[in-house]
Amino acid sequence: MTYTPATQDQLLAIRVNAGIEELAQSEKFAAAEPDMVEAIVSGIGEFAAGEWAPLNRAGDLEGAKLENGVVRLPEGFAEAYAHYVEQGWNAIAGPVEFGGQGLPFTLSCNVLENLGTANMAFNLLPMLSVGAIESLEHHGSKALQEKYLPRLVSGEWSGTMNLTEPQAGSDVGALRTTAQPIEDGEHAGKYRIKGQKIYITWGEHELAKNIVHLVLARLPDAPEGSRGISLFIVPKYHVKDDGTLGSHNDLRCVSIEHKLGINASPTCVMSYGDNGECIGELVGAENRGLMAMFTMMNNARINVGNQGVQIGERATQQALGYAQERVQSARAGSPDKSPIAIVEHPDVRRMLLRMKALTEGARALLYYTAGQVDRGTLGDTAAGARGEVLTPLIKAWGTDIGIEVASLGVQVHGGMGFIEETGAAQHWRDSRIAPIYEGTNGIQAADLVTRKLGLDGGEALTGLISDIARDAKDEPRLAALAADCEAVANWMREEASLDDRLAGSVPFCTMLAVAVAGWQLLRQLRAVESGESPGLAAAKPASVRFFIDRIVPEASGQKAAATAGAEPLYAISTEQLVG
Amino acid sequence: MTYTPATQDQLLAIRVNAGIEELAQSEKFAAAEPDMVEAIVSGIGEFAAGEWAPLNRAGDLEGAKLENGVVRLPEGFAEAYAHYVEQGWNAIAGPVEFGGQGLPFTLSCNVLENLGTANMAFNLLPMLSVGAIESLEHHGSKALQEKYLPRLVSGEWSGTMNLTEPQAGSDVGALRTTAQPIEDGEHAGKYRIKGQKIYITWGEHELAKNIVHLVLARLPDAPEGSRGISLFIVPKYHVKDDGTLGSHNDLRCVSIEHKLGINASPTCVMSYGDNGECIGELVGAENRGLMAMFTMMNNARINVGNQGVQIGERATQQALGYAQERVQSARAGSPDKSPIAIVEHPDVRRMLLRMKALTEGARALLYYTAGQVDRGTLGDTAAGARGEVLTPLIKAWGTDIGIEVASLGVQVHGGMGFIEETGAAQHWRDSRIAPIYEGTNGIQAADLVTRKLGLDGGEALTGLISDIARDAKDEPRLAALAADCEAVANWMREEASLDDRLAGSVPFCTMLAVAVAGWQLLRQLRAVESGESPGLAAAKPASVRFFIDRIVPEASGQKAAATAGAEPLYAISTEQLVG
Repeated sequence: MTYTPATQDQLLAIRVNAGIEELAQSEKFAAAEPDMVEAIVSGIGEFAAGEWAPLNRAGDLEGAKLENGVVRLPEGFAEAYAHYVEQGWNAIAGPVEFGGQGLPFTLSCNVLENLGTANMAFNLLPMLSVGAIESLEHHGSKALQEKYLPRLVSGEWSGTMNLTEPQAGSDVGALRTTAQPIEDGEHAGKYRIKGQKIYITWGEHELAKNIVHLVLARLPDAPEGSRGISLFIVPKYHVKDDGTLGSHNDLRCVSIEHKLGINASPTCVMSYGDNGECIGELVGAENRGLMAMFTMMNNARINVGNQGVQIGERATQQALGYAQERVQSARAGSPDKSPIAIVEHPDVRRMLLRMKALTEGARALLYYTAGQVDRGTLGDTAAGARGEVLTPLIKAWGTDIGIEVASLGVQVHGGMGFIEETGAAQHWRDSRIAPIYEGTNGIQAADLVTRKLGLDGGEALTGLISDIARDAKDEPRLAALAADCEAVANWMREEASLDDRLAGSVPFCTMLAVAVAGWQLLRQLRAVESGESPGLAAAKPASVRFFIDRIVPEASGQKAAATAGAEPLYAISTEQLVG
Repeated sequence: MTYTPATQDQLLAIRVNAGIEELAQSEKFAAAEPDMVEAIVSGIGEFAAGEWAPLNRAGDLEGAKLENGVVRLPEGFAEAYAHYVEQGWNAIAGPVEFGGQGLPFTLSCNVLENLGTANMAFNLLPMLSVGAIESLEHHGSKALQEKYLPRLVSGEWSGTMNLTEPQAGSDVGALRTTAQPIEDGEHAGKYRIKGQKIYITWGEHELAKNIVHLVLARLPDAPEGSRGISLFIVPKYHVKDDGTLGSHNDLRCVSIEHKLGINASPTCVMSYGDNGECIGELVGAENRGLMAMFTMMNNARINVGNQGVQIGERATQQALGYAQERVQSARAGSPDKSPIAIVEHPDVRRMLLRMKALTEGARALLYYTAGQVDRGTLGDTAAGARGEVLTPLIKAWGTDIGIEVASLGVQVHGGMGFIEETGAAQHWRDSRIAPIYEGTNGIQAADLVTRKLGLDGGEALTGLISDIARDAKDEPRLAALAADCEAVANWMREEASLDDRLAGSVPFCTMLAVAVAGWQLLRQLRAVESGESPGLAAAKPASVRFFIDRIVPEASGQKAAATAGAEPLYAISTEQLVG
């Protein structure tokens, strides 16, 4: 089961929504000129579809297995990862001084989009490494950067993020792992790490020569809660000063989880310091670990939203393929009683267009967000702030539509969709994790109605909604949704309590995400009508019209829920609710 | 992992929405007096939670297995089925002359609701038997009834439905299995059946002493398509005239499917007549098999809609339990910084109330539908027609909300929800089949906008919407949705082409289902306010208000999609759509 990379639609989004040509006018991103962009987008698409996609089914069936403390992947994964590293794909957006190409985040998103469409579970390996690179790039000392970044950037080593503990999920501040300063000896100036972390994605494997764990822990006498957390770098194998590998650090993978999906991605319980000899180094300032982690988490959230686009694209293509081949029933009302391909039946076509419209809408939102983040990197603070507003939208709504599209994909297959062999069910199972990790979608929505609602004195959000309203003058349904978003935002600011805002946060997040996605699709449509991407001249209007005429009004239907307030939720006591 | 049967809410729905006391005034259903109803509802709840629920996880983990042509179930299933039969639960609604209790369909729904909440996969065994009983009761000859019904009614034997073949899924008329009349010998007057059927639920097992297959097949020279199909009864073991079992018929289970969920339910590929000696008997008239099957399928569709309620109830209870136990983060904005149970956080509470409101709304719709069907059985043709309008609503929307509630259940569990051990993921996987089988939800919606839209000259649908509008005078949101439904129905009748209606069928089906569910919940609320079910006096208003104030307006948001027409779906060619 393979697929065709969505190269044309990706290039359209990268040009129109991310505005890559404008980015390339900066000194920093000058290398991102059109030929280079096209080479990357088509190159990674071809690589991913050719080498990673064929491993997707085996990854699900066989999965990752823990044997004597070592995680084994199905045949082919090690080679496919080695090829990915050899061809330099891991280094696209890494810092130039450490061997990276220094290209925009927008293009890193594209690399991940293609790898994840091919193989969502496998793609978590490079995705987590990107996070480790960003943390070190922004918070690591020069010495740590020189020691770790070259091989992380190349992909020779991989990275992980260690936040969660059993009692500390969404509440990271509740973590208990400790870091004890070492005064003397070989490791003087470093720390002894002790604790257990759960849900560590790709925490153990042998595809990379070393694994660089970024671990949140507490120093002795650190303040309680989130202000007492520091970030440490803890390698699987010690790294000598000359960069070569030493002995195995005192850390191990205790077990891996039996999950609903993404079975090729080992989700590890990691134990640090069983023998009191797990050595780590501090990244950034003491007790500022959460800040350092959040720098990284912003982009990681966008990368998780990206997974919705990925699974959406893969599920849509598979459903389109099946619907074209499966012949069943005559067209209703037709004098011709011969059975036709189900893609010709109105409701199947509605499902397929919905899948396509949602996926393309999420892609437009993804690259618009990435482009704003890149502008922020170039010093445009207004764009940076807008990127921050957009981040929870793409994370939450992008992953919600990932599930919806994958579910429609199962439905298009009928009975076959429920049989695992078909593969449609895998996409649906895989998609379910994305609304949970990297901050649940409820956490994203809470971020939107608290920090993001007030960012830049409210201007970041207000300016976004005004821009949509201005461009949507000739599109009454989109204009109505923009007006609804404005009304909800005003109610939240002027009348609602904190609880009221939180009670309406998820519906509001959906409304705003649909409004931005509809707006960015409208920009794509206008560009296509002006001659951009002639290959999409027929298909793009159909998906954009579907989105604006059918999906946008649905989002307006959430206004009542967004402004219903918290009181009705607490009108019964918890005891009465539980019954 | 067990649960508490929703006895109080079921009794409320049986009284208020099904109107059981009115039904019990008829001679036929006189036995359904209040004490009997309470005894059944509480008795089956206790039995299901006590004996069937504990097998749910093992059923998923071990599943049904085919070994040398025999299907094996995990330990405990055979005993649990035997107890179910011994206690007489299978006979609740069966015909009195064959050992049944002759109680209303409403109470049969309740037995299935409880069994399916306990164990959705296991419940398919009695559910399919109900279908076989109904087919024989309405279409079988007296001789066939006497031969088969007593043991089907008791549950000693089980039944199956054999429609689907690889090339004949939603298009049953395309089936090719043949039936050859036998002129002479031992089986004179019977038929030789030959063909292969797929997706046969509980097609092979050893929990019952015999399996009674109802098989659609073609007689020689039968007309093509759906007008050339006849219904046959084909037992696993031949039944002698004295009712004792003879030799094994020439039929076998070739393989069972590896599915996404309901793993304890063997989904069989059945082969009939490999050796040319599979003997069956005709049920009903020649070439009228589809009609006979549809009699049964109407109630089967309601029973599948019921599965949405079942999985919704189970997922809601599990999520409520977890949310009460899981302590994480302080209440936002509270001066008290101690972590609290997550049920206290506004967005978690929103999810839980949404789960509860959707489940109770689907239950209210389910029993309202069942009550109309029972009135139809008593000769009230208007109620019978209304039951027919309601059937696609409960099947499609009931199963849609089953998935949504199970998905929210996963989300409430956070990272734990994605770990199979927790059990939340199983509910979500199990729920996914219900929108597919017994006529996909697209087929249900098509039925609504074609046959049901015009039933009784349109009166059946129009009368329903008018009744909602009349009762919703003081509920502006519900009144608005009723008006939206009326506008869509009028557009479909007066302006829309067949393709336009089909293109808007699924959104319209959702809108109408939410309107009826909201209306029936409102009737529950008014009853509770008048003193009915004092135990629900606190909880019921909270879920009804959530439903009417938040879920009803969302459904109005689908009006644009319902009336968007088919033209936009065909604005691009299939080639352009596939890309």
